[in-house]
Amino acid sequence: MVQFVEIADPDDPRVAAFRGIRERDLVRGGAFVAEGTVVVGQLAASPFFVPKQLLVLRNRLNGIADLLDHLPDDMPVFVAERPVIDAVAGFAMHRGVLAVGEARAVPRLPLPERLAALAAEGRTVVAAVGIANHDNIGGIFRNAAAFAAGMVLVDETSCDPLYRKAIRVSAGAVLSVPFERVRAERLPDLLREAGFRAVALSPGGTLDLAALDAVREPVALVLGAEGPGLPPSLMARMETLRIDMAPGFDSLNVATSAAIALQRLYSARGGASEG
Amino acid sequence: MVQFVEIADPDDPRVAAFRGIRERDLVRGGAFVAEGTVVVGQLAASPFFVPKQLLVLRNRLNGIADLLDHLPDDMPVFVAERPVIDAVAGFAMHRGVLAVGEARAVPRLPLPERLAALAAEGRTVVAAVGIANHDNIGGIFRNAAAFAAGMVLVDETSCDPLYRKAIRVSAGAVLSVPFERVRAERLPDLLREAGFRAVALSPGGTLDLAALDAVREPVALVLGAEGPGLPPSLMARMETLRIDMAPGFDSLNVATSAAIALQRLYSARGGASEG
Repeated sequence: MVQFVEIADPDDPRVAAFRGIRERDLVRGGAFVAEGTVVVGQLAASPFFVPKQLLVLRNRLNGIADLLDHLPDDMPVFVAERPVIDAVAGFAMHRGVLAVGEARAVPRLPLPERLAALAAEGRTVVAAVGIANHDNIGGIFRNAAAFAAGMVLVDETSCDPLYRKAIRVSAGAVLSVPFERVRAERLPDLLREAGFRAVALSPGGTLDLAALDAVREPVALVLGAEGPGLPPSLMARMETLRIDMAPGFDSLNVATSAAIALQRLYSARGGASEG
Repeated sequence: MVQFVEIADPDDPRVAAFRGIRERDLVRGGAFVAEGTVVVGQLAASPFFVPKQLLVLRNRLNGIADLLDHLPDDMPVFVAERPVIDAVAGFAMHRGVLAVGEARAVPRLPLPERLAALAAEGRTVVAAVGIANHDNIGGIFRNAAAFAAGMVLVDETSCDPLYRKAIRVSAGAVLSVPFERVRAERLPDLLREAGFRAVALSPGGTLDLAALDAVREPVALVLGAEGPGLPPSLMARMETLRIDMAPGFDSLNVATSAAIALQRLYSARGGASEG
């Protein structure tokens, strides 16, 4: 049974982890903030992360009874009225259900072995290079989850998928799709050695999207930032794929491009029977 | 030649149209605000809208020389330093190039005739129903432009495509793709009578996405809000189309779903040769 703790004073030290979260991307020590019933539910169900504390608007308690039943015993659930939560969080758009979460200490195989296992299952993986925008990282994870991608690799220049806004935009997918940090320059070899065909999305790509239908190997879809795109030195080490657009139109949002390619792969490979 | 006007005082009445734009979606009298060189460039090139005034950071003037060459003669271009622009606009994230625009007075055929003409050309059109979120409306227009849709119909409950944030997220596409307001309940008959096959995107749709490849008629893609989706009474009057996703995954972002379906139609119909 979770432990309900009434909070009446916004300065109460027990809710320190929730203080001023609008302005901070991560809370102390790499912990992160999940917002809303759906995302906090994903956190509670995640094999990789675990909720440590909840802060809930009193009138939302009844609506999250199912969620509360699935939380670890003895987990503190702080309960407060709206003015108190708004004052703690520093903003009023928090959906009334907030959780602080952190990574579980789960033993994991080395990354090359995990990638090889995904390739052996025929799963698609995604790599994000230079994606500094929180909305775009969140959108990439959401779309990766929608089309059963097995992992997202995030390069050293992309933003942290556990930033508050990235988690929210991902609809919680950053808590369900495994991800790892990898230096961009390692990607081509790492992916190829694991058994993937590494394909970089690029407006000037050689392959047309429809060519994915004929690809039999597992695909790693490599995404660069809108505008600069992938570094040419990296792109030269992979196949490139384009999504044809109306003449004169510049480019799609990167998460949208990813969705189009992921859907094509998912559908060509039999969809749900695959994942 | 445009008329440069130095603005040193944020309270200068000549820049009244730019005052406090962060908090307002439209400026007085249905005029709107476009931000950034790309979007202001789209405004200058739009057949449907026209820039009336610009407010530009002094150090951005050189970078927009091409744009300035394409502005109407005698148009006021207000020039100011950053502290002045920030104080006028009410925020600092405005990219240093702002324009107030408004609709051109262009004679247009009645909507049924314009839709029939698009259907006769085999163009795809999009209808947005209940899309209240500015990001989503903007994303729908961006994706409609990317895949050469001929028009976006916007129902009475959707937000105004000319809201500041919608324009920005659309990358200016709301200024290039024609749109019209239409009551949602009129859509099925209006589209059918114009010659479109009206297809509603819905997670429980009857047709699978790939079925679009075999459709020969022009398609009108009808989009509802994430969460509630389209009203059942409306959906019952159209065909429905689903995009299969990983089991247990709830739904894609509506603009992303639209992109996937629009790309499929664009590609099946020969892409650029179509639009």
